[in-house]
Amino acid sequence: MAKTNPPDGGGSDANDNTFIRHRVARPPKEGLLKEFKSVIQETFFHDAPLRDFKDQTASKKVLLGIQAVFPIIGWAREYNLRKLRGDVISGLTIASLCIPQDIGYAKLANLDPKYGLYSSFVPPLVYAGMGSSRDIAIGPVAVVSLLLGTLCQAVINPKENPAEYLRLALTATFFAGVFEAGLGFLRLGFLIDFLSHAAVVGFMGGAAITIALQQLKGFLGIKKFTKKTDIVSVMKSVFAASRHGWNWQTIVIGASFLTFLLVAKYIGRKNKKLFWVPAVAPLISVVVSTFFVFIKNYADKQGVQIVRHIDQGINPISVGKLYFSGKYFTEGIRIGLVAGMVALTEAVAIARTFAALKDYQIDGNKEMIALGTMNIAGSLTSCYIATGSFSRSAVNYMAGCHTAVSNIVMAIVVALTLAFITPLFKYTPNAILAAIIISAVLGLIDIEAAILIWKIDKLDFAACMGAFLGVVFVSVEIGLLISVVISFAKILLQVTRPRTVVLGKLPSTNVYRNTLQYPDAAKIPGILIIRVDSAIYFSNANYLRERILRWLREEEEKAKAAYMPAIKFLIIEMSPVTDIDTSGIHSIEELHKNLEKRQIQLILANPGPVVTEKLHASRFADEIGEENIFLSIGDAVATCSPKLAEQQA
Amino acid sequence: MAKTNPPDGGGSDANDNTFIRHRVARPPKEGLLKEFKSVIQETFFHDAPLRDFKDQTASKKVLLGIQAVFPIIGWAREYNLRKLRGDVISGLTIASLCIPQDIGYAKLANLDPKYGLYSSFVPPLVYAGMGSSRDIAIGPVAVVSLLLGTLCQAVINPKENPAEYLRLALTATFFAGVFEAGLGFLRLGFLIDFLSHAAVVGFMGGAAITIALQQLKGFLGIKKFTKKTDIVSVMKSVFAASRHGWNWQTIVIGASFLTFLLVAKYIGRKNKKLFWVPAVAPLISVVVSTFFVFIKNYADKQGVQIVRHIDQGINPISVGKLYFSGKYFTEGIRIGLVAGMVALTEAVAIARTFAALKDYQIDGNKEMIALGTMNIAGSLTSCYIATGSFSRSAVNYMAGCHTAVSNIVMAIVVALTLAFITPLFKYTPNAILAAIIISAVLGLIDIEAAILIWKIDKLDFAACMGAFLGVVFVSVEIGLLISVVISFAKILLQVTRPRTVVLGKLPSTNVYRNTLQYPDAAKIPGILIIRVDSAIYFSNANYLRERILRWLREEEEKAKAAYMPAIKFLIIEMSPVTDIDTSGIHSIEELHKNLEKRQIQLILANPGPVVTEKLHASRFADEIGEENIFLSIGDAVATCSPKLAEQQA
Repeated sequence: MAKTNPPDGGGSDANDNTFIRHRVARPPKEGLLKEFKSVIQETFFHDAPLRDFKDQTASKKVLLGIQAVFPIIGWAREYNLRKLRGDVISGLTIASLCIPQDIGYAKLANLDPKYGLYSSFVPPLVYAGMGSSRDIAIGPVAVVSLLLGTLCQAVINPKENPAEYLRLALTATFFAGVFEAGLGFLRLGFLIDFLSHAAVVGFMGGAAITIALQQLKGFLGIKKFTKKTDIVSVMKSVFAASRHGWNWQTIVIGASFLTFLLVAKYIGRKNKKLFWVPAVAPLISVVVSTFFVFIKNYADKQGVQIVRHIDQGINPISVGKLYFSGKYFTEGIRIGLVAGMVALTEAVAIARTFAALKDYQIDGNKEMIALGTMNIAGSLTSCYIATGSFSRSAVNYMAGCHTAVSNIVMAIVVALTLAFITPLFKYTPNAILAAIIISAVLGLIDIEAAILIWKIDKLDFAACMGAFLGVVFVSVEIGLLISVVISFAKILLQVTRPRTVVLGKLPSTNVYRNTLQYPDAAKIPGILIIRVDSAIYFSNANYLRERILRWLREEEEKAKAAYMPAIKFLIIEMSPVTDIDTSGIHSIEELHKNLEKRQIQLILANPGPVVTEKLHASRFADEIGEENIFLSIGDAVATCSPKLAEQQA
Repeated sequence: MAKTNPPDGGGSDANDNTFIRHRVARPPKEGLLKEFKSVIQETFFHDAPLRDFKDQTASKKVLLGIQAVFPIIGWAREYNLRKLRGDVISGLTIASLCIPQDIGYAKLANLDPKYGLYSSFVPPLVYAGMGSSRDIAIGPVAVVSLLLGTLCQAVINPKENPAEYLRLALTATFFAGVFEAGLGFLRLGFLIDFLSHAAVVGFMGGAAITIALQQLKGFLGIKKFTKKTDIVSVMKSVFAASRHGWNWQTIVIGASFLTFLLVAKYIGRKNKKLFWVPAVAPLISVVVSTFFVFIKNYADKQGVQIVRHIDQGINPISVGKLYFSGKYFTEGIRIGLVAGMVALTEAVAIARTFAALKDYQIDGNKEMIALGTMNIAGSLTSCYIATGSFSRSAVNYMAGCHTAVSNIVMAIVVALTLAFITPLFKYTPNAILAAIIISAVLGLIDIEAAILIWKIDKLDFAACMGAFLGVVFVSVEIGLLISVVISFAKILLQVTRPRTVVLGKLPSTNVYRNTLQYPDAAKIPGILIIRVDSAIYFSNANYLRERILRWLREEEEKAKAAYMPAIKFLIIEMSPVTDIDTSGIHSIEELHKNLEKRQIQLILANPGPVVTEKLHASRFADEIGEENIFLSIGDAVATCSPKLAEQQA
């Protein structure tokens, strides 16, 4: 740091333009408490959630606090008729879409159809009061229903013990809510970011195919069907059933309505204004097919399977049904954790996507509290895990929703359905529900995203395919496990193997760039410049030392082969090195000793504030000499070049 | 990239010196196979282990291959009498140190003393043939012995079922060897880097205190002693025993020899030439005290506890004793994994430390194969887990060892001891062994390192203290668990919360630096420059987007308060961004959309080769416009400034 202006344009560096030398600044040492506070803030409160509370009176703060928990208080005051119109239209649209879906999804969770409808009543109402997304449509979704069903049926057989099975599912829902709200409350929401986008795309695609395959049971009218979800077992079931003959009437009904649904979807995609066509098509299919089957009495005469019975009436209280001790209690916690995290990932992704489209802010942690509370409330009122549905949220958005009132409208419609209309669903053929589910989950298979992932990042693509194949060929849990493991492996790779690059000087500038990217960036004879692109931590300190020594060896060999002067200075560009820990300091000390033995001087360029502080705290700055720490590579080279010329003379 | 020379010194940037503009280079696209190869190389073969094999004949390659597995073939050819002299002296010195230690350490593992000696015979011989460290001293060590003892006695009571207990310990040793060799063979050695230096310092210190506390049993002559290792239980045992009277003869013997050992240690530390004083002191203590106790018949008369019996003869074969099925088989695998990893961490750290001191290279993965093979061989010949001992390695180094021959010398001395001398140890008082262990483990408490860690990194210090307190107050396993968890938490923090800094221009230069570190670095009105110091991955993509928007909000508020022009350009300096994945691309796209709505232009400066490639693959480069991607901040500012002036005019 004791540096004065160097000899003008010495050595090979005649083009060096920065004549005024600045010193490497050592920022004033922060107190321990302040340092600790800043780590806590960046980790848990990086979005400054309390910024609106600043400089407010106490009563205003209380009001803001209540409003933070119940955003409805904030936006309700600005609510008007124009918004109501949009919300009612979109609410009615998503209600017509969710009623048939709910009935089908409940079957994926091995529950009676009514539980799907229950879950579209209480949770959306709770969410409307507490959630901050304006576009998300709340209710049961296919993937979470399947996951809950798979996990629960591994513990209790839903056919033999339907009452206990229901209790387990409700317990899992309760704990899913507890985990979701807990993560948000402890501001640990960032943990869900550990499921990478690529893994989610693969998992969703695989789950969609698994769900579609499961629908073959209803679609083909098969009576004996495997309990496993992998493609091999399902196909075996399907072909085994084919020998006893599939029910062709069922197939005709299913296939014709599936065609109708897919055509409706196609129309909706081609013309954005006709978004309501695919949205109401499922309800139309249900009404038409139910009427048809009822009139012709196909169920009794032709063996077409129908829903048979849905209880009338809205959600009964289920507080007493939760397990709070025993084996099923711990199983409920485990299932709740897994299913809750998947539900959360989906809901938060949806909330973020639509918030970005309409340019408003979502606080992920607050969102999690809302989602968790709604599931806790749901588990007490006979609902199973609800979350944000991507397809229904998209319809909600396109139908012009303005606020969460559309969810309230939907919930009211569902409640009315439960109270008055459910008996009419008796004759709804299962094949129609299967067709509705198939057409809904096909949207989860995002081939474009997979292609993009392939183009951008091959490792990501491996994660995507791993999750996909795991779900399709083994099971939903294994697929999920693969996604998590691959996501973590990628993080480990990132922290253990950071990049190092050799820099060269771009002609006629004082800019140093990666020599592999810029072939005309020239290396300076006798000086090796390496940039380290990561914090130096215990996880990579050894690697970095060894990698730098390998660069040195390689460059020395090249220099020797080209009869160039031997390397005498090793400059490490430290700009990207945000932090260094004790292992890192040890490693760099060892590097310094290694280099000293070979008579090569180690030079550091532009260490950041944290690193500068630690270099001094550990006395390494004294060991290497403050005159060997420079503000920029240009400064360092300008100082080294004359020394080199001296040595060679 | 379609960029021409900008108007000379436009706007506030009159000092811009880089008149010749270079384009952001897009390196030629690498083939998929090549890309994959380079990832594999950096991950598993970053040290280019095969570089010597290049351009060699086939027969030479075979020879090099054999030599790679057995480095002894390489150095044996250059072996000479001078080296032999050094190796014999150091071998004898470490033998005299290891014999009493081995007897004591075996007791920590709840095994007969002879197993400690066995473990100093076969493993060092195997290591000498395969290992590449010249200074490490192989044998049982205190921490691993304690860990093995604690883990095994949780499964089988060593007093009730000594035979089964031994079988479990041998099985654990076998699998420790398998895991060690396996990690090395699969070149996954970097995994041990995940135990951070700070956590290891804390863990070792805690283990040292735990071990020293355990010695109070022998030291005070207590007969009834707790099986737990935490400080509270041990102190209760000690005070409970005090009521029945401690054995004062035992205490006198123990205390006087402990004083002797500590004085010897002090002498050795003060005068490096007298390194042999602390090295032979333990053996002298054993000989003198044994003789003393034998002559005076203290054991029978005064109740001084003695070793009583050590079998004569070298290692019996123990192949048939390993469990390969049943409950103890899986327990053996688990214990082997934990104890093996700790042993490996210690050995590799020692090998690296001394290699750095003497400036030779250690291949961590090859070293692991050697350590693993030696433990597998050991488990078949009645040895328990051996590894590198730090204290004995230091003595070995100071005594002037040149090669692993010193380990061979030590092994021969131990074998001779086993064959002829062991019956003489019958009257060795346990108190002496306790004193030797206490004096040995005190060296593991590295207070200086802890102080340095406190100075350098407070989070590291928390990890250190967490591990330390966990071991001392709960148990060795819990301490180890805490170290691992805190180490991982630090990595997660690193990857989820990367640093972002606002840059300003240093006066009279074209250098942009952190405005918090360099208070005279000036922000340019209307332009916000942010550097992102990390790869942009799924784990941090959301955080980064939100953090950048927060910077923008804060700077906008400041600009407004100071009546400065509003921000119209956001420049992101991408130099440190080594990579970006699909989530990162999505996030930056969302940021771009957010900014567009606020009429702020997003500009990228100096994206690296990988990022440039991915920006194009994802079409984001087209979306933002190639004219908004610059080689350097200087270039970007020079182009933005005139536009700003226009807008304000």
